Amino acid sequence: MKFCHQCAGSLVLRIPDGDDRPRHCCTECDSILYLNPNNIVGTLPFYEDKVLLCKRAIQPRIGKWTLPAGFMENGESSLNGAIRETTEEAGASVLIQEDSLYTLFNLPAINQVYLFFRAELANLNFTAGIESEEVALFSEEEIPWKEIAFPVVKCTLEHYFNDRRTQQFPVRMFDVQHEEEKKITTHLISESRHESGEV
Amino acid sequence: MKFCHQCAGSLVLRIPDGDDRPRHCCTECDSILYLNPNNIVGTLPFYEDKVLLCKRAIQPRIGKWTLPAGFMENGESSLNGAIRETTEEAGASVLIQEDSLYTLFNLPAINQVYLFFRAELANLNFTAGIESEEVALFSEEEIPWKEIAFPVVKCTLEHYFNDRRTQQFPVRMFDVQHEEEKKITTHLISESRHESGEV
Repeated sequence: MKFCHQCAGSLVLRIPDGDDRPRHCCTECDSILYLNPNNIVGTLPFYEDKVLLCKRAIQPRIGKWTLPAGFMENGESSLNGAIRETTEEAGASVLIQEDSLYTLFNLPAINQVYLFFRAELANLNFTAGIESEEVALFSEEEIPWKEIAFPVVKCTLEHYFNDRRTQQFPVRMFDVQHEEEKKITTHLISESRHESGEV
Repeated sequence: MKFCHQCAGSLVLRIPDGDDRPRHCCTECDSILYLNPNNIVGTLPFYEDKVLLCKRAIQPRIGKWTLPAGFMENGESSLNGAIRETTEEAGASVLIQEDSLYTLFNLPAINQVYLFFRAELANLNFTAGIESEEVALFSEEEIPWKEIAFPVVKCTLEHYFNDRRTQQFPVRMFDVQHEEEKKITTHLISESRHESGEV
């Protein structure tokens, strides 16, 4: 981040008047460049007792399995972005129910927020998109647990198969901490409750 | 968006190879400037049967009442951002429970996502921050319904007071549509359910 979008002047890191943290400020015009977290939106596509996963054809984590997800774009809702990514990466059509929002992850170390929606496959006509080597359905026992691309995906899958047993799918939010030596830990921060506090 | 951050080259809108939508691309280096939605995070601070609102001292909607909220910053979780904004705008300390996540709004017309968390006031030592003219507690009957700054705040407050009657606080996601003649409509997209589909 060296130059201003507006005037091509040099950017410097300083705390603007009335602010409390350093921003990239233009030395020639009044522009301030704000950097904020990005949202990544995806679905957990299911069919009967199976979940659809995509084998990544791109970095990072090429060759590992993931849920279809990608950056939320301007001009779309988070759910519509998740449906779009499901079409792009897995060629899959999904049916959206009225309780689709499922997991939310804060990843402050890498300035990302993940949102996953549960979505039933409308049919079995899925096919690998350009960013996927392969797309397949897996039951809980068949999931390649050691080959899952991202902790947020593993966590969402684990909760999904647990929640299937009771058919209760609370909305959960987690913080993902990136600790030393690449250790990543996931902490439950919020879980929707009903019926006098019982989940 | 005229100049490249990296090299100060000119930006042009074109569809990059392998992409499907126009991006701001540098004509001199390989940089692509991606623009994505921003998250706005806030709390619904409550104390007994009352909710804390802030009278805005800044544009937009100066003089109107709102819940404490602001842009989520890099390096923080959405809940920690919401707590920070509550301190900054209302000088308030809150107690966070395990089902704090409450409403989520997609505003595709203005590339924003709002997240509100329910948060009990730890005490009554609140005070207006620099962006607030005044901070006060309101019961449902006292809320200045016609003087609420934003539809997402009004919607969150309406659901909160309704949910208080049953003490069930499902997590709800809404799409906010900006229609012609500044008409804004809010549509429920997802609501967490428990107990065999009943809320």
